[in-house]
Amino acid sequence: MTRTASDRSTPPNPLYAYVGAFVSELRRAGIAHVVICPGSRSTPLALACAEEKGLRVWMHLDERAAAFFALGMAKRLASPVALLCTSGTAAANFFPAIIEAKLTRVPLIVLTADRPHELRDCGAPQTIDQNRLYGVYVKWFMDVALPEATTTALRYIRTLANRAVALARARPAGPVHLNLPFREPLTPEPQPQLLPPATEREPLAWAGRAEQAPYVRVTEAEGAGLPVATVARLAALLRQYRRGLIIVGPQSEPRLAPVLQRLAERCGYPLLADPLSQVRSSGQSPGPVLRSYDAFLRSERFVASAAPDLVLRFGAIPTSKPLLLYLQRYGDRPLLVVDGAGGWEEPTQLASEMLHADPVAVCEQLIEALAETSDAEEHHEPWLERWQQAERLTQQALRRTMETFSQLFEGRVFSELAELLPDGSTLYVGNSMPVRDLDTFFWSERPIRCLGNRGANGIDGVLSSALGVSAAQQALADPAPVVLVIGDLAFLHDLNGLIAAHLHQLPLLVILINNDGGGIFSFLPQAAYPEHFEQLFGTPTGLNFAPAVEMYRGRFRRISSWEEFRSACREGLSQGGLQVIEVVTERASNVELHRQLWRAVDQALHREASEEV
Amino acid sequence: MTRTASDRSTPPNPLYAYVGAFVSELRRAGIAHVVICPGSRSTPLALACAEEKGLRVWMHLDERAAAFFALGMAKRLASPVALLCTSGTAAANFFPAIIEAKLTRVPLIVLTADRPHELRDCGAPQTIDQNRLYGVYVKWFMDVALPEATTTALRYIRTLANRAVALARARPAGPVHLNLPFREPLTPEPQPQLLPPATEREPLAWAGRAEQAPYVRVTEAEGAGLPVATVARLAALLRQYRRGLIIVGPQSEPRLAPVLQRLAERCGYPLLADPLSQVRSSGQSPGPVLRSYDAFLRSERFVASAAPDLVLRFGAIPTSKPLLLYLQRYGDRPLLVVDGAGGWEEPTQLASEMLHADPVAVCEQLIEALAETSDAEEHHEPWLERWQQAERLTQQALRRTMETFSQLFEGRVFSELAELLPDGSTLYVGNSMPVRDLDTFFWSERPIRCLGNRGANGIDGVLSSALGVSAAQQALADPAPVVLVIGDLAFLHDLNGLIAAHLHQLPLLVILINNDGGGIFSFLPQAAYPEHFEQLFGTPTGLNFAPAVEMYRGRFRRISSWEEFRSACREGLSQGGLQVIEVVTERASNVELHRQLWRAVDQALHREASEEV
Repeated sequence: MTRTASDRSTPPNPLYAYVGAFVSELRRAGIAHVVICPGSRSTPLALACAEEKGLRVWMHLDERAAAFFALGMAKRLASPVALLCTSGTAAANFFPAIIEAKLTRVPLIVLTADRPHELRDCGAPQTIDQNRLYGVYVKWFMDVALPEATTTALRYIRTLANRAVALARARPAGPVHLNLPFREPLTPEPQPQLLPPATEREPLAWAGRAEQAPYVRVTEAEGAGLPVATVARLAALLRQYRRGLIIVGPQSEPRLAPVLQRLAERCGYPLLADPLSQVRSSGQSPGPVLRSYDAFLRSERFVASAAPDLVLRFGAIPTSKPLLLYLQRYGDRPLLVVDGAGGWEEPTQLASEMLHADPVAVCEQLIEALAETSDAEEHHEPWLERWQQAERLTQQALRRTMETFSQLFEGRVFSELAELLPDGSTLYVGNSMPVRDLDTFFWSERPIRCLGNRGANGIDGVLSSALGVSAAQQALADPAPVVLVIGDLAFLHDLNGLIAAHLHQLPLLVILINNDGGGIFSFLPQAAYPEHFEQLFGTPTGLNFAPAVEMYRGRFRRISSWEEFRSACREGLSQGGLQVIEVVTERASNVELHRQLWRAVDQALHREASEEV
Repeated sequence: MTRTASDRSTPPNPLYAYVGAFVSELRRAGIAHVVICPGSRSTPLALACAEEKGLRVWMHLDERAAAFFALGMAKRLASPVALLCTSGTAAANFFPAIIEAKLTRVPLIVLTADRPHELRDCGAPQTIDQNRLYGVYVKWFMDVALPEATTTALRYIRTLANRAVALARARPAGPVHLNLPFREPLTPEPQPQLLPPATEREPLAWAGRAEQAPYVRVTEAEGAGLPVATVARLAALLRQYRRGLIIVGPQSEPRLAPVLQRLAERCGYPLLADPLSQVRSSGQSPGPVLRSYDAFLRSERFVASAAPDLVLRFGAIPTSKPLLLYLQRYGDRPLLVVDGAGGWEEPTQLASEMLHADPVAVCEQLIEALAETSDAEEHHEPWLERWQQAERLTQQALRRTMETFSQLFEGRVFSELAELLPDGSTLYVGNSMPVRDLDTFFWSERPIRCLGNRGANGIDGVLSSALGVSAAQQALADPAPVVLVIGDLAFLHDLNGLIAAHLHQLPLLVILINNDGGGIFSFLPQAAYPEHFEQLFGTPTGLNFAPAVEMYRGRFRRISSWEEFRSACREGLSQGGLQVIEVVTERASNVELHRQLWRAVDQALHREASEEV
């Protein structure tokens, strides 16, 4: 008894009429990709997805990795991706990525198959309570009705699909969760007797709207700006305060970079751009954009003499700890935070004003208001120039000092990549050290998309997220490479994610910084307690990752010089597939090398100051 | 500035006085093991655990695997194990194992470190809302107060630790979650000025009770039996119905096996013992215990002629699908379900009576009540004998038929292991096929502990659970081996778990049944839809696991005959360490071989019936 799943359309059975309508509406609402983990209870949705033209199925095996893979895809596509698993703990494995998606505002449509109501909370196999499984971490949850092939049910499920996609997209974007219970039989056995006669089927409910239009189109208002009076008040402030700063933290809106830059130019303010802000490496000319502040704000000399009058902040909280300490030091100055999504991304408790309005609109409003200022009024103080000079001196000092290091220095991975990556590349970075070193050592102005999982800053799922970006590149037919820089513990944590590279032939260049354990702890006060340090914090594993990479048919190379690094990267970028380049470093000396660099920067700034005198 | 953590006791600082009291009380309440994943925010608890004598720290790297590791330990120890991670998605990775622990009634003390209140829900790094993070899946949740070194705070935290452990143990046992926020500094810098003078420290609050007694001892009532009138009524039923059955599903109470067997003997009822019931392989003489019903209840001939008068069921729902179909077929007979933990492990909706009382007490009450029955009244019908005969014929037919197979048959792994495993071994099995094949082909009467994750029946964490049992064996100084039988997808899903074998030098013999994908789907209706079958359900990976096993310093062998299997197992059992024996099988033919066996059983039962006629 062999059947093709297309039997389900002529005649369908009630279950498949229902899930078919649902999946069709997901696609009509703009979902083009679904990441599926195998399972039995999810069969109706999996088969309906596989049958739906225009919807691409990405199979994955480990739900935790799969969810991060979907997150990476959705980030790159700037559009929701669907995610499907069977009932039980499978769904719980999605949880880490769902939390990350919520905090970092990435739209996901999370679909969990469930047992029907009579099998809930009574010891049935592979059954857990999936109602509100993800708690506060989804924007919306619905326990969907059991499938029925009636006009009412089909209208309901078509509407629901469009509503879910619209809610996932709505600002702030994020994950939504639909839990779909199914009764056996789960396969599309023909059951024409259970369907109403064709003449009694209301056409829209049964077949959807003409020309593949969504059953209900959802339009959201544009992101709105501030009230006129507020704009005037703020413009007056910006005119009044000549020593202002604009800071932009991690954020994903591509339209923000040019308007922020124009605003900064107009104000004569330095624009401190986080590496994940999409402003630092946006292809903009340098102008007021600063990329090395993480290094020079460690210099007491500079910080003491660079008190701001006012700070205007966009995006999430920046990665740089010296920048946060700088903000705390000058915590009595006005700190204005713009968050278009009505959030409160402000952990310093220093904000004097929260501006809940669209950031791009706010910039445009302020630029317009400030254009009325006469040129004569404009900045005559060398405020911006001082920051720009600190930037130049810092970059010189860092470059020169790094050249003198005889051993492989972790931060140099980023200054090397800044030269090596072609325009349009995506650079994904792990948390802990990679994102911090990115902040300090990656100054490229060329258009390079820098991404990281900075919602919850977890060690988990980074590899899978990067592979999701690679999948999105493939879907967009964008040949620009994806490069991941990751530490050994994060690599190990998400090793299962590598299977996606193998299953879907995805290219990814991984720079694996292997310092055999948790490198960041050597920078923290824990390092002063050697008795339990290696056991609890250093956690060396002594593992050689080459076999695991080879298991997934990737290529593994360990480099021992920057020359080798460059040629391995060039080769890796041209060859495609999974390429892992290991840079072996040493945790204790890594701290020392970083500190040497901070001293060199401080001295360079000092020398300059002395010469000025 | 190098310090030893023992500085924290003389003088302590307030944070460490608080966490030290907490950890000391956990230990005094009976916690002997804590599984810790590295992190910064969890530093105070991690250091306090490392310093606490009598508490063993097990480091792990992947929180998902770590939580299943703790679950395995707690199962084997029959006592709560503590589990600690840092803030953020780390905690979310515990979720699958917590769900499994809740459903399968395993006590865990889940400790998550958190940011202090001022850093919550404001975009602070590595901060997620951890309040009620695990929803309905923990028995108890407390967001613990910020540390203080006052008499009130220390009384509170000492009480809380004992309460948490008591609640985790209380029937039904399960996970409890304490979320502990900590403010920086997280390390034990001496802060004597922040402590009250020694003279003002209330001795019990500050130092705990004498002789390491818990601050508050918690005693729970014994599991109680049924009211006398109910016992009399049930005993009358059991006397009246001669064709009764006792079924015992997965459960962990070791005292149940002997009383159940005595009850079955007393009633003349067959005792159908699930492989995870701790009754099947309990070292009891065969008597009424049946171990092959999963095979012979597939025979329509047997089922049609073996209608029960009454069924008395203990434990969770049994693994065997034929047994469930048999119960459904005779769904009009009284079905009495005993669940001592006040649960409702009854997904069939066939139960006529739920008995919420201690199962051991119930058995003892019924045995006593039935003892008053005179021998003359006892069963004269060959009801038990018919089931016993079916069992003998089934085992003969299965053995004989398996011998004729020229290829490696998955089920034979279990009949081979039944011979190979020494008394006292633990056999952990994966879900999907391994637990089903265990049910059908593992008939050992010798004392072998069979375990599986049958709360949610997930694919996840099985390897780590087995390694947790191995760790518990080490802790108990019990040299009996732990053997895991697992399919390739589950093995891959929990590959990260293998690091525990490497980090802690744990012995584990893994029988990896590699049929390159999801073998169980070939038995399900999905197999009739070949168009998308391999993509969505078969999900072959084509991976060779040898490199991954070698990465973790394990030994990998692929066997090609049962002779090789036996010698590899013997070698693996004697050598210790991580040993993986791969049995390569083929999904499609595996179904065919199983079906041949069912036909052979049916024919054997038929032949016998004919001969009787």
